Amino acid sequence: MEVEVPKVFMKPLLVPNKTLMGPGPSNATRRVLDAMSNPLLGECHQENLQIMDEIKEGIKYLFQTQNPATMCISGSGHAGMEAAMCNLLEDGDVVLMGVTGLWGNRAGDIAQRYGADVHYVRARCGYALSFEDIREAFQTYNPKVFFIAQGDSSTGVLQSFISDIGDLCRRFNCLLVVDIVASLGSAEFLMDEWKVDVAYTGSQKVLCGPAGITPISFNQRALNKIKARQSKVKSYYFDITLLGQFWGCFGTSRIYHHTVSSTLLYGLREAIAIVCQQGLKNMIRRHIECSYRLQKGIENMGMEMFVPEPNHRMSSINVIKIPNGVDWRKVSQYAMNK
Amino acid sequence: MEVEVPKVFMKPLLVPNKTLMGPGPSNATRRVLDAMSNPLLGECHQENLQIMDEIKEGIKYLFQTQNPATMCISGSGHAGMEAAMCNLLEDGDVVLMGVTGLWGNRAGDIAQRYGADVHYVRARCGYALSFEDIREAFQTYNPKVFFIAQGDSSTGVLQSFISDIGDLCRRFNCLLVVDIVASLGSAEFLMDEWKVDVAYTGSQKVLCGPAGITPISFNQRALNKIKARQSKVKSYYFDITLLGQFWGCFGTSRIYHHTVSSTLLYGLREAIAIVCQQGLKNMIRRHIECSYRLQKGIENMGMEMFVPEPNHRMSSINVIKIPNGVDWRKVSQYAMNK
Repeated sequence: MEVEVPKVFMKPLLVPNKTLMGPGPSNATRRVLDAMSNPLLGECHQENLQIMDEIKEGIKYLFQTQNPATMCISGSGHAGMEAAMCNLLEDGDVVLMGVTGLWGNRAGDIAQRYGADVHYVRARCGYALSFEDIREAFQTYNPKVFFIAQGDSSTGVLQSFISDIGDLCRRFNCLLVVDIVASLGSAEFLMDEWKVDVAYTGSQKVLCGPAGITPISFNQRALNKIKARQSKVKSYYFDITLLGQFWGCFGTSRIYHHTVSSTLLYGLREAIAIVCQQGLKNMIRRHIECSYRLQKGIENMGMEMFVPEPNHRMSSINVIKIPNGVDWRKVSQYAMNK
Repeated sequence: MEVEVPKVFMKPLLVPNKTLMGPGPSNATRRVLDAMSNPLLGECHQENLQIMDEIKEGIKYLFQTQNPATMCISGSGHAGMEAAMCNLLEDGDVVLMGVTGLWGNRAGDIAQRYGADVHYVRARCGYALSFEDIREAFQTYNPKVFFIAQGDSSTGVLQSFISDIGDLCRRFNCLLVVDIVASLGSAEFLMDEWKVDVAYTGSQKVLCGPAGITPISFNQRALNKIKARQSKVKSYYFDITLLGQFWGCFGTSRIYHHTVSSTLLYGLREAIAIVCQQGLKNMIRRHIECSYRLQKGIENMGMEMFVPEPNHRMSSINVIKIPNGVDWRKVSQYAMNK
């Protein structure tokens, strides 16, 4: 053979035990990690479908929703964002992105690729959007879809009054997509009560599950827009109608869509079980308390939080200003190594 | 809270140990399963990037390629197919699908969604395509991209003379995409020598790794077509230029693209290591020998293989005709349960 066996595979896999407290994945507990060493199942085995059903119920509890179209995307949080955009949007649809950091811009890039007419309403860096800003942008653009991240992990900004945005969207006949990748479990989120039409979260953040599988939920208004599409969803992999059929969301018989990773299902199932056993409210309270103590400590050390307004700070991602005269690269590298 | 904790999460996760010999995932060894209970890593940790680099070298060996643009899609084999199609194709591009079962049609559905002008050349059910059929279809349609599955898991058909198809593609200035999801490791595949421009495989089939992560490789001809695109790749998640940057394929500094599942990287790394230690040629020979014995046994029992021509049978997926008078549903259900 022309290409020889790489020698590195004669060495064993060695994975260090890192403390993960960045905006990436969090540490998973031993229970979650152990679950992932269970034997593989086929995607259509009854036992695998049962675990998928349990996860659906778990997501409904976490999102506080009754939506039947609640499932997982087999991909990262980015894939959840893309699934939300490509199912809702057709060529030329006007979409408005609320920007409080990186994620509104990323959603805009994705929507533009899928042919949407993308506009932005941007907050000052480190600040949340005001309701007035959003309302004015609605009047200017009259969007069919509005996107906002409840928590933006690049700035640590928490967007509040999502319930008011939900009401605004109804008045403008607009769909509301909320990114709760980094916030779910660390801040209150009531999908149905707040009239959120699509939401998706990260498995590997506050939930402390494995990366690579992304809970997502669509309500009936969102499904109605999808049913009324003139064109097929451009992505087969992210087509919620097909995926939801496989996840048994529509009361029809399940049709194979793609091979779901049973390994990731096990890990996510156990991560959700831990939240269920702790109670979602307790988990949120714990995050807020820990964050409050951290913030006090930071202030006592004479340092500042990046988000000036305490009510607009995420409790899961606490962004601290690097003091003048300190090289941020060194701080970042130290944190990465330690 | 309105939505209460689902009671099912008070019960432990119980995963049975199934014998997986269907066209879905295969059983993973204890080494692979144990690897996946290692602690999570952040996607940008040096140790995680190192594992990604090892996997890249492993895929190059498995595919027998020197392509720098060799990486993994964070998704199932379907995602690999979609990544191949959406990177290569722009609106109106003529693509020809070789159909020997389900997968050529699926590739057609995906390509059509992305705006391509899709045509098909279809083999009789249970048969491979003849070179003549393919050549005539090339003359009729003059495609920019040709797709073929080396092994189609829905029929058990193995498409041979891919090397000749590679030559044909060069003459027609056409790109060759080969789906090796279910065949890699059970039949010879020489990506560079056979002039294959894009190939992707399943992690959970012959490789016996976890599902959810899909090795893929693009050669320079494929990258040239992507670089010459008039429009952005419609999917951000599957954009090979961005993904390849994160996988360190282009000699530029790595830029975060999405959160790769470290768990799946561990499992895939170990699955590849096992192949490396066995040797790819030995693994292929073992599959062919086992399949040959199975076929003999089937014939001795008075039954028939679904693919009449022995040289066109996959060795990894052995499709057996259900004898007249036997209810296929019962056979299938028995196999699923046992």
